[in-house]
Amino acid sequence: MSTNGGDAVSAREESQASAVTYSNDSGLGIIHISDGRGNRLNPSSLEELSRAFQEGLADEDAKLLMIRSGERSFCLGMDLEGLESSLDDDGSGGNSGGDHRSGGVKRYSSLLYSIAGCAKPVIALVEGDVKAGGVGLAAACDIVIAREDASFELSEVLFGLVPYNVLPYVFSLRMSPQRFRYMVLSAARVDAREARDFGLVDRVFSEDALEKGLKSMLKTMMRAEPRALAAAKTFFTRALDQDFDTLRGNAEQALLKHMAQPQVKEGLEAFHSGDMPEWFSRFKPGKKLSGQNG
Amino acid sequence: MSTNGGDAVSAREESQASAVTYSNDSGLGIIHISDGRGNRLNPSSLEELSRAFQEGLADEDAKLLMIRSGERSFCLGMDLEGLESSLDDDGSGGNSGGDHRSGGVKRYSSLLYSIAGCAKPVIALVEGDVKAGGVGLAAACDIVIAREDASFELSEVLFGLVPYNVLPYVFSLRMSPQRFRYMVLSAARVDAREARDFGLVDRVFSEDALEKGLKSMLKTMMRAEPRALAAAKTFFTRALDQDFDTLRGNAEQALLKHMAQPQVKEGLEAFHSGDMPEWFSRFKPGKKLSGQNG
Amino acid sequence: MSTNGGDAVSAREESQASAVTYSNDSGLGIIHISDGRGNRLNPSSLEELSRAFQEGLADEDAKLLMIRSGERSFCLGMDLEGLESSLDDDGSGGNSGGDHRSGGVKRYSSLLYSIAGCAKPVIALVEGDVKAGGVGLAAACDIVIAREDASFELSEVLFGLVPYNVLPYVFSLRMSPQRFRYMVLSAARVDAREARDFGLVDRVFSEDALEKGLKSMLKTMMRAEPRALAAAKTFFTRALDQDFDTLRGNAEQALLKHMAQPQVKEGLEAFHSGDMPEWFSRFKPGKKLSGQNG
Repeated sequence: MSTNGGDAVSAREESQASAVTYSNDSGLGIIHISDGRGNRLNPSSLEELSRAFQEGLADEDAKLLMIRSGERSFCLGMDLEGLESSLDDDGSGGNSGGDHRSGGVKRYSSLLYSIAGCAKPVIALVEGDVKAGGVGLAAACDIVIAREDASFELSEVLFGLVPYNVLPYVFSLRMSPQRFRYMVLSAARVDAREARDFGLVDRVFSEDALEKGLKSMLKTMMRAEPRALAAAKTFFTRALDQDFDTLRGNAEQALLKHMAQPQVKEGLEAFHSGDMPEWFSRFKPGKKLSGQNG
Repeated sequence: MSTNGGDAVSAREESQASAVTYSNDSGLGIIHISDGRGNRLNPSSLEELSRAFQEGLADEDAKLLMIRSGERSFCLGMDLEGLESSLDDDGSGGNSGGDHRSGGVKRYSSLLYSIAGCAKPVIALVEGDVKAGGVGLAAACDIVIAREDASFELSEVLFGLVPYNVLPYVFSLRMSPQRFRYMVLSAARVDAREARDFGLVDRVFSEDALEKGLKSMLKTMMRAEPRALAAAKTFFTRALDQDFDTLRGNAEQALLKHMAQPQVKEGLEAFHSGDMPEWFSRFKPGKKLSGQNG
Repeated sequence: MSTNGGDAVSAREESQASAVTYSNDSGLGIIHISDGRGNRLNPSSLEELSRAFQEGLADEDAKLLMIRSGERSFCLGMDLEGLESSLDDDGSGGNSGGDHRSGGVKRYSSLLYSIAGCAKPVIALVEGDVKAGGVGLAAACDIVIAREDASFELSEVLFGLVPYNVLPYVFSLRMSPQRFRYMVLSAARVDAREARDFGLVDRVFSEDALEKGLKSMLKTMMRAEPRALAAAKTFFTRALDQDFDTLRGNAEQALLKHMAQPQVKEGLEAFHSGDMPEWFSRFKPGKKLSGQNG
C-alpha cells in the first residue's frame, strides 16, 4: 500500500520476525497474522497463533477477539514445503517427519476447537485469499466478515489431499453436506458473495464500506453483556449433538436459570430508568481495523 | 393506513380489547395478533395466542393456518416489563415472579412445538419488525413469507439475555449453527432478503406484490390433499433426529404405505379423466390478506 | 433444436429405443437419459438408469460421471400412469401392483444411495424442469449444475402424495428442514437461482455461459487425484451421522493416514520440480456437453 519501497521492505522484515502479534484496541483483542508469505500453517506458526489466541482469551480487557491478516492473503493453508520435508524424513528411518505432521494436525485441530468453544466471540476478518486449512480457520470463528474481493478455495484434491481437518467446522457448522462436496470435489474458487450464500461468510463489504461496517458491528457488540455472550457460545457448542426434544428441554431450563441472574435485573432497571447498564463499553479504536498493513 | 384519526383510534381500542382473534376466510384460518404495542409475549398473550391456534387446529373448515399481525411489528419478543416485575417479586420472598417466568417460558415453548408439529401447514406473514422471541415464533412456522421491509433481530445479549428458547427452532430447523451465532453474538438487524438468504424466511415480496403473491401461493396450497399435508408434517418432525440410513428405510416404508391409500387412487383416476380430485378447494378470500389493519 | 422435422423425429425414435445410454468422452462418463416424454421414473427406466450408472462406475477410464438429459426436462418424477395401473392391479386380487410399486421405490432408493456413496464424483446437469422424484435424483448427485431457466418442483401433495423418498437426500444433504417444508407444503415451482439459494443447486449458468462454464469446471476436476476424490466421498458419507467430537477425532486420524500415502509425496515432488503429477488428466471432450440433443 506504500509507494516507498524501503518502508515496505522493513515492514516485511519486522513481520517475519513476529509473524503473529496480539494487541488490544479499545476492548477488541486483535490477533494479527502476517508472515509475508500467505500465513501458511505449520507446527511453529500454529504454535504462535495459539499463543496469541490464548493471550486474547486471558486478556480481561478484551471483550471480543478478531483474527486478521496484514497482507493480501488471510491464510493459504498447510505449509506444503514443510509437509514435503516431513515425508522425506520418513524415508530416512527416523520418525521426526511423522511427528512433524502429527504435531501440525493436532495443533490445528486444537486451535480451531478453542476458537469455536471459547467464551469470547471470535471474528475472522478476511480481506483476501483463503485456501485449504485457512478455510477451516475462518469457519471456526463465530463471525466471518469478508471484503468483496476475498476468495475461498478447498483445492486439496488437486494435490492428492483431502480437507479432512476442515470438514468438522465447515460441514457441521456452516454448510450443507452437499455444498461442501461441491467445494471439495470441484476445487472451485468461490468469491466472497458466493461464500456468503454458501454459509462460509456472514457478511460481505465492499472495500470502501468495510472499515465503517466492521466498526459499526463491533460498536454494537461492545454493548453486549459478556456473561450472556459466554453462555450463548457454550450452549451453542453443546447444542450441536442434541436431539430436538433434549435441546428444547435444555433451552427452557437454561433460560429460566439465566433470567434469575442478578445482572439481568440490574440491566432491566438501568434500561427502565433511561440509564445504560454497567456492561456497555464504548468502542473507540485507535487504529484502522482493516486494510493491508503487514 | 387511514387518514381518519377517529377510526384509527377506535380500531386500536377494539384490538386492545381482543389482541388475538381467530377467523376463517375461505378455508384459511387466520390467527390475527394486534395489541397495538408490538405484540410482546407474556403469559397472558401467549395464552390467547395458543387458544386461537387451537381454535384453528380444531376448525374442520380450515385447511391452512396463517399467523399475522395487524400492525407494523409482527412480534417484538418477550415482554421485558413483565420480566422486570417478576424479578422484583422474587426479592420480596414470594414465588410468584418465578412462576410468572416459568409460565411464560413453558407456554412459549409449547406453542412453538404445536406449530411445528401439528397436522396443518402454518404460515407466518411478516410485514414488519420481528425481535427476539418473535423470531422463534416465525421460525417455528412451516412457511415464512416476508414483506421486503421486514426485519429480524436477535439482540438479547444487549439486555444480558440469551435467546435459548428460540434456538431449537432457528438452529435445528432453519439456519446453520454458525449463522445463528452471527445473529446472536452480533445482535445484528437483518433485513428480509438477508433473512431469506440465511434461511429464516422462505419468500420475500415487495409491498406491491405481497397480496397477489401470497394469494397465489395459498391458492395452490388449497389444492393439496390434506392427509398428505398432515403426513408430510408428521414425517418431517420425526425425521429430525434420525440417522441417514434409518431415515432412508423409514421413507421407503412410508411411501409404499402411503401409495396404497384409497385417496391416491381416486385422485389419479380423477386427474386421468380430466376431473379435479375431491380434495381441491377453491380459495376466494373475502378480505385482504395483508396490510396493516390492527 | 433442428428445423428439420424428419431428423427430429428419427432422433426421438432412436432415443425411445434406448432411453438411457452411457458413453465416455475424454474421461467423463456420461449417463444420458432421454425417453422423449420427460424421463419419468418406473421400475424399467430405473433399471436402465442403474445399469448405465454401474457401467460408469466400472469404467476405469471415467474419472467423473455426469447425468444429463437430452431433452427439455431433466426428470419429471415418478411415472403416475404406471402407479395408477399398479393400484388397479391391487383391486383385482393379485399382488403384482404392490410388487411394481415396491420394485420402483426400492430401485429408486438404491440408485440414489449408490450415487451419493460411490467412489466417483457425480454431476447432475439440469437444463430444464425437475419434478418430484427427479429432484431427489439431482439432489443425490455431488454437484448440481443448472441452466438459469431450469425449475425445481416438489408438488406431490397436489396428487395426494408425499415426497418421502426424496426427503433423505434433500433434507439431510442439501436443505434446512424448514426450507424443505416450504417446498413440499407450498408445492412451489422454484427457479434455478432460488434453488441455488436453497441449496438444491450448486452453480447456475445462463444458457450462453453453460457449455464453457461446465467445461472449465470439469477441466479442473480432471486434475484431481482419484484416490483423494474417492476418500473424500467415503468420508463425507460416514460423517453424516457422527457427533462433532467423534468427527473431529476421525478427521485427524484420516488426515494423518492420508498424508503418509506414496502418491502425496510423488505429487508434492512433481509440483516442487515444476512438473505435473501423474494423475493430471486433460479434458478434451469430442462432443458438446450441454444442449438438447435427445
